Amino acid sequence: MAIYTVSKTAPVNIATLKYWGKRDKNLNLPTNSSISVTLAQDDLRTLTSVATSETFSQDQLWLNGKLESLESERTQQCLQDLRNLRSKLEAGDSSLPPMSKWNLHIVSENNFPTAAGLASSAAGFAALVAAIAKLYELPESASEISKIARKGSGSACRSLFGGYVAWEMGSEADGSDSKAVEVASQSHWPDMKAAILVVSAAKKDTPSTSGMQHTVATSDLFQERIRNVVPKRFEEMKQAIQSRDFASFAELTMRDSNSFHATCLDSYPPIFYMNDTSRQIVKLCHQINAFYKETIVAYTFDAGPNAVLYYLEQNETKLMAFIYQAFQRNSGWDSKFSAKDLAAFEEHFTFNVAPEMAFDLDLDMHKNVSRVIFTQVGPAPQDTAECLIDTTTGNPK
Amino acid sequence: MAIYTVSKTAPVNIATLKYWGKRDKNLNLPTNSSISVTLAQDDLRTLTSVATSETFSQDQLWLNGKLESLESERTQQCLQDLRNLRSKLEAGDSSLPPMSKWNLHIVSENNFPTAAGLASSAAGFAALVAAIAKLYELPESASEISKIARKGSGSACRSLFGGYVAWEMGSEADGSDSKAVEVASQSHWPDMKAAILVVSAAKKDTPSTSGMQHTVATSDLFQERIRNVVPKRFEEMKQAIQSRDFASFAELTMRDSNSFHATCLDSYPPIFYMNDTSRQIVKLCHQINAFYKETIVAYTFDAGPNAVLYYLEQNETKLMAFIYQAFQRNSGWDSKFSAKDLAAFEEHFTFNVAPEMAFDLDLDMHKNVSRVIFTQVGPAPQDTAECLIDTTTGNPK
Repeated sequence: MAIYTVSKTAPVNIATLKYWGKRDKNLNLPTNSSISVTLAQDDLRTLTSVATSETFSQDQLWLNGKLESLESERTQQCLQDLRNLRSKLEAGDSSLPPMSKWNLHIVSENNFPTAAGLASSAAGFAALVAAIAKLYELPESASEISKIARKGSGSACRSLFGGYVAWEMGSEADGSDSKAVEVASQSHWPDMKAAILVVSAAKKDTPSTSGMQHTVATSDLFQERIRNVVPKRFEEMKQAIQSRDFASFAELTMRDSNSFHATCLDSYPPIFYMNDTSRQIVKLCHQINAFYKETIVAYTFDAGPNAVLYYLEQNETKLMAFIYQAFQRNSGWDSKFSAKDLAAFEEHFTFNVAPEMAFDLDLDMHKNVSRVIFTQVGPAPQDTAECLIDTTTGNPK
Repeated sequence: MAIYTVSKTAPVNIATLKYWGKRDKNLNLPTNSSISVTLAQDDLRTLTSVATSETFSQDQLWLNGKLESLESERTQQCLQDLRNLRSKLEAGDSSLPPMSKWNLHIVSENNFPTAAGLASSAAGFAALVAAIAKLYELPESASEISKIARKGSGSACRSLFGGYVAWEMGSEADGSDSKAVEVASQSHWPDMKAAILVVSAAKKDTPSTSGMQHTVATSDLFQERIRNVVPKRFEEMKQAIQSRDFASFAELTMRDSNSFHATCLDSYPPIFYMNDTSRQIVKLCHQINAFYKETIVAYTFDAGPNAVLYYLEQNETKLMAFIYQAFQRNSGWDSKFSAKDLAAFEEHFTFNVAPEMAFDLDLDMHKNVSRVIFTQVGPAPQDTAECLIDTTTGNPK
């Protein structure tokens, strides 16, 4: 019996205009539009292989080597939506293998550890949906497929695209217009890079899904954010990306991160995601931009204390002069930079920064950071020859 | 030559509905109304003695034993306003000593250290203005005099009253209707107590005056706060005080503290007053209220990391069972509580709390707290026999 297999890798995305708040929990429809930068899959990605066959007795999922449940409503919804689309194809062409009726084996792996504190549900659902869509040979566009990923995990829809992506909130009650679209491709603005400072978290954060609904329900200032602040910022940020205006893009990004966290603080009881180390990093970024009299770095924080710093390649040495000085004792540098690169950062600090610096660099910040991850803007989900499934058995290799 | 002397003590007040934002910097007119609780002068007060005499060659000020400058515009404005009111009296009655033409010697002392992190400008200006108003025998009401204190330091106007005080923002451009009024007297709700957890601050905070204007200028969410959130909350909080509804008063207080700090975070660059210890205290308060299934404590934070906890006397043991457990190693307990009191707190924790407690108390929080100060709701500025001036020389004793 034939076993059909497809493998896809899907990226992580980090929002620069934040999704925080649902207007419909079942369909994952947001209270506002959001924008993200897709990160390079060489550095961070979910690889998902899916197989289907008449011989499979049940749907099964393996995540990072462990058999996991597929029972969550959201996962079931994704599978059902994909099967429905496949059904329609089969109804129009009886030569097609009736895959919609068969069970699926799904094997998925991240190349980044959970300890990185990077939410993997976006990359995970995007990979799942992209792989099955390809397996089923669905003709739907990435935007259409993104609506299925959206129902799995809201921000997963943005991981169906590369480059700079918007999740248009939509206005229809059925979510038919709530989908991801490309704002600009990776090649439109390829020199965007990101450094992720993974801040050690002593305590577990409030999960996003309950956190955002708590904000919707209890924050007065949140209404202003979704009614006025974000809609305006959405247009401005798209414009900044399209014109490759880093200074505007950066300011909007920093403002939106703070705005989102402000509404968390304005919730009752308040939600705190950023900690003192996060705040020191915020302060450092503003000091760096003031030092160079130019906005060369933007910070953004999700529902946790990790800092994601966005910057352009041409400013890497200027930025890393500071970042390397503060965080050289954290791991992650040598997987991306050569000894020569690091020496250049050191030199730039010693000769160009230190003599002029009017503030003190907090050399203890590194103690609260567990690692640094360096990456850049990347492409949409990719086909891959790498396969996690033994194509003769349909089970994980 | 006669030397006329008056001494007054004036209280500290801690806002429960926050003043943050000026619509007029020169006159200290706020963007919104505010409410505060006046604290007991036995615990925290400024004592100010003022003397005037034809023989004084210049205005002089001694603060906590040191000769200080009176040159700040705001202080000059206060003195001028008071002299103008005295002039008017003298114009109507030539038998009055022409004090408005004489110089002043002002000697002022706080009974709490600067290290307590409690802003002393409110108590300071209130004492200054109250003492001189009494010296000049001005007939104006406390609300009228509060307008002069307001010009010295905005929140000082609220320290002209005891109990529960509102600073009505007013709408006139000249500030003639921007003044403090009594919401309820100390005796209306006398069982209100406060515990101040003085959080060690490694860095200096952004000063209030520049901080609030920075928020006015850069925070989008701030407009919503002053247009809609605070006006509504102002009425609700006055109502809660008048009906002695602690649960409502507390929730409004906690929400407003968070709202104010949220607009600081929403400023660009953001302002951070609360730190991780502040946040742990916030969390602890919510856990305490959840534990007792009753709102027995409210937190509020000003422009700094210190926590002020409001509670009613009847809930003191319930609250201190937790607070003593967490902060017993900090100084300040024995100036207010006997060994018997402390044992009662310990017992309540051991027998009533610990067996039921579903969360862990962070026993390291005390490391970041420098002291605890216990006080209660208190009266308006008081006359005092204590005098800091040698009435024969007109100089500090």
